[in-house]
Amino acid sequence: MSEHPLDPIFHPRAVALVGTPTTNSSWGGGFLLSILDMGFDKERVYPVNPKAQDINGLPCYPTLLDTPDPVDYVISMVPASVVPTLVDQCIEKKIRAIHFFTAGFSETGDPRMAEMEREMIAKLRAAGIRAIGPNCMGLYVPDGHLAFNRGHPRESGNVFLLSQSGANAGQIVSGLSRRGVRFSKAVSFGNGADLRAHDFFDYAASDPQTEIVIAYMEGIQDGRKLVEAVKRCAELKPTIILKGGLSAAGARAANSHTASLAGSRVIFESLCRQAGAIRAETMNDLLDLTVAVTTSVRKVEGRGVALVGGPGGFAVLSSDAIAAEDLDVPPMSATAKNKLREFVPVAGTSVNNPIDAHLRPGEQFDEGMKVIATSDGIDVVFSTTFGNEMPDRGPRNRDSDSDSDSDDEAEEKPDETREEQLRRSAAEACERLARLQDETGKPFVIIQRGDMGFGPMQRGNFYEVAAYERGIGVFPDVPRTARAVRLMLEWRKRREGLPEVF
Amino acid sequence: MSEHPLDPIFHPRAVALVGTPTTNSSWGGGFLLSILDMGFDKERVYPVNPKAQDINGLPCYPTLLDTPDPVDYVISMVPASVVPTLVDQCIEKKIRAIHFFTAGFSETGDPRMAEMEREMIAKLRAAGIRAIGPNCMGLYVPDGHLAFNRGHPRESGNVFLLSQSGANAGQIVSGLSRRGVRFSKAVSFGNGADLRAHDFFDYAASDPQTEIVIAYMEGIQDGRKLVEAVKRCAELKPTIILKGGLSAAGARAANSHTASLAGSRVIFESLCRQAGAIRAETMNDLLDLTVAVTTSVRKVEGRGVALVGGPGGFAVLSSDAIAAEDLDVPPMSATAKNKLREFVPVAGTSVNNPIDAHLRPGEQFDEGMKVIATSDGIDVVFSTTFGNEMPDRGPRNRDSDSDSDSDDEAEEKPDETREEQLRRSAAEACERLARLQDETGKPFVIIQRGDMGFGPMQRGNFYEVAAYERGIGVFPDVPRTARAVRLMLEWRKRREGLPEVF
Repeated sequence: MSEHPLDPIFHPRAVALVGTPTTNSSWGGGFLLSILDMGFDKERVYPVNPKAQDINGLPCYPTLLDTPDPVDYVISMVPASVVPTLVDQCIEKKIRAIHFFTAGFSETGDPRMAEMEREMIAKLRAAGIRAIGPNCMGLYVPDGHLAFNRGHPRESGNVFLLSQSGANAGQIVSGLSRRGVRFSKAVSFGNGADLRAHDFFDYAASDPQTEIVIAYMEGIQDGRKLVEAVKRCAELKPTIILKGGLSAAGARAANSHTASLAGSRVIFESLCRQAGAIRAETMNDLLDLTVAVTTSVRKVEGRGVALVGGPGGFAVLSSDAIAAEDLDVPPMSATAKNKLREFVPVAGTSVNNPIDAHLRPGEQFDEGMKVIATSDGIDVVFSTTFGNEMPDRGPRNRDSDSDSDSDDEAEEKPDETREEQLRRSAAEACERLARLQDETGKPFVIIQRGDMGFGPMQRGNFYEVAAYERGIGVFPDVPRTARAVRLMLEWRKRREGLPEVF
Repeated sequence: MSEHPLDPIFHPRAVALVGTPTTNSSWGGGFLLSILDMGFDKERVYPVNPKAQDINGLPCYPTLLDTPDPVDYVISMVPASVVPTLVDQCIEKKIRAIHFFTAGFSETGDPRMAEMEREMIAKLRAAGIRAIGPNCMGLYVPDGHLAFNRGHPRESGNVFLLSQSGANAGQIVSGLSRRGVRFSKAVSFGNGADLRAHDFFDYAASDPQTEIVIAYMEGIQDGRKLVEAVKRCAELKPTIILKGGLSAAGARAANSHTASLAGSRVIFESLCRQAGAIRAETMNDLLDLTVAVTTSVRKVEGRGVALVGGPGGFAVLSSDAIAAEDLDVPPMSATAKNKLREFVPVAGTSVNNPIDAHLRPGEQFDEGMKVIATSDGIDVVFSTTFGNEMPDRGPRNRDSDSDSDSDDEAEEKPDETREEQLRRSAAEACERLARLQDETGKPFVIIQRGDMGFGPMQRGNFYEVAAYERGIGVFPDVPRTARAVRLMLEWRKRREGLPEVF
């Protein structure tokens, strides 16, 4: 397979960090540690700062020209005023790409700085050097050992993120990583003075590691090329786009932020519609839709929701929230109700959907869930108790000495740490749920109820990750779950006639 | 002042808990411990259970008739089948009120159980005994030493809560307590077979301890009386109502839950409008509006928001979210921008609103905030950094050895625990913000950014509580803050012509 022209940028052999601060805590000081955390070969990481002999145990060089050869990737943390000199050095050093963390160019609104931005990009291009930024966080590439924040997962995945905002890129990477999602590459490209959205959509469309493409955009640069690139990408791979600056106030903010001219809502909506892309309206949408499209949520075929797990008042408000997204909570069939009543007591419960009943972990849970999922008119099962009442003992029976549930999967193994035990029990419970999903042919979704102060979150994110690994989506509350389901249904409908992407 | 007829119910002299389970963890076992936690005189708390000699160190009685005299309040945890006997005993014992935690009556849909409910209530009423429930959690009254969940604050406050759902009541009490709100009384009244919404609205309207009334309702019982009671209450005191079951699916759930017939959205909306009540559409609304109406948020006079605190991409999406609630983020005046530029560097910042700039804690923060709050067109200041960058050292400078900010309020006092230090620094910082609010005449709001994994939440809820105590609202994210501001503006507009309630 032929190499994409941008491939080398994502997999540099050696990195010079020019202007690395001498203390890690200073603004920009995180790049060095992030890259080392990702396992980049220490021998090929070169901090550059004339004021230091070494930084974090690595030898430090006074200028880029003093670093060993070859250097193919430079991260610029110098002030904007020093950038012209650095650009000359990059050309002399024959690097392939430069990431300008440096800000203070066109986004300031100062025409002189905008002109300086244009000049430096023209000079770099003439020398065959590509630039990311300025005014951005650059690259997170697990396989290329690059990262812009500490704590990014080292394992790679199938999601490509492009973002004009570095802070939003960080929030997306950490928010989705916590939910089990992994990335092929993530790019924060700021002002997009050289490489910009359409370049990255093009790359992502052809990148064999990438199966899903998600984007946070502020401006529309090179409109025609962008439309073409989004169309090509969204035809081949699920593509989710969050556009900031669609309001007048947001557009002003985007202009101050990345010098972006934001473009209208109508144009953007029609772009998404034509291209078969999925439009996220908020940051939560972007996160939730990414989870939805990479789990069984994308397979939901209709509007019928079974809501399992009380209590009553929560079930009432949840039903309203589901209805607000134009989904339904249809009554259980008479057959299903009768079957459930065989093991669900009458007082303080409901088997009519929403189902407010305590299904004992194990066979009762499995049997109940099968009855519910296969009742007439049910297309998807929302579980708000899973993980609370699963084999590792939920709050209802945790302290009970009279509890005699036979939780065969919960047996404690004395040589396990608490974390290992939680991880194992989460994996076993999610495996069980995945089997139920296969047997019934209906997607299951787990809802966490952080608002009630309990749920899997309370015990780390073991359930989130274990569920995601088995293709089951985990969401923080009912309204967001219902919204993700509706948006998936709408997207699939809009794609009719376009190629299958999954 | 004359006593309200319901007053004794909220301040019982002695409580019998009939059917107290022998283990605390069993369903219903929490009442005894909750009441003891609230400081109810142990000598006057009587568990009743023929199978135990003592429960939690208290002598246990075989039947209600065996308990010492007088008992004026009974909590029933016995099964529905035993209730008729208990009712006879209550009459013989001459109690004043009974709370039926017991479920399994009209909400089951079984006509015989509905009939049993009517009969028992008729019998109790004939004997002058009032009933709360059945199928509910009963009372939380800090001054009466009653509670239905452990962990409820012992201090009382000015908010009266009435809720048909016990789980929602618990969620509201804990969710608001965490944010600093305190309650005069909270009532979960379930099926409302005797005392129901209009009784509690009536009581709350006349209760001198109550300044704000909030409600979660499912059914409309005694429609005419309810309308009258809500009108009277909402005219006198800010009254916020969340109505569950407005969708068809939610109405079915409400009927299973509390035997409620839910009534239409139109009728409910017109009731709120006519009465000058504030309508909450979701649980988050109810929580946020309660905070809004009891803090300076209720004083916001217009649509102009100053959004202080980056980073850039977050500011863009936040501006869109603010615009989505029909508020504005107007540019700073030229004067304000010039003043801010005196201490805010150009690169990587914006002073144009949203303001993305690091204001150093202390005088720079105060000076910057004053300039921002008093710029033309600004009606309210949203701060997304407060508490992160305040005197007790925020994340940006926490680990910095080159940091030389003179944080006079942050000086460590060696004899303070970490918690005392956090509490003190939160109190001092919020005091400072409250002074700025007074000086500028503009409301300030604190937004927590839990989504970014930092903020006051990370250090307990010291900031939330300290801010609330000084009348400053704290909200979890920008969309919810903007929505609360819009709903306050709309409510105040709708109330024109009605008496001032604050």
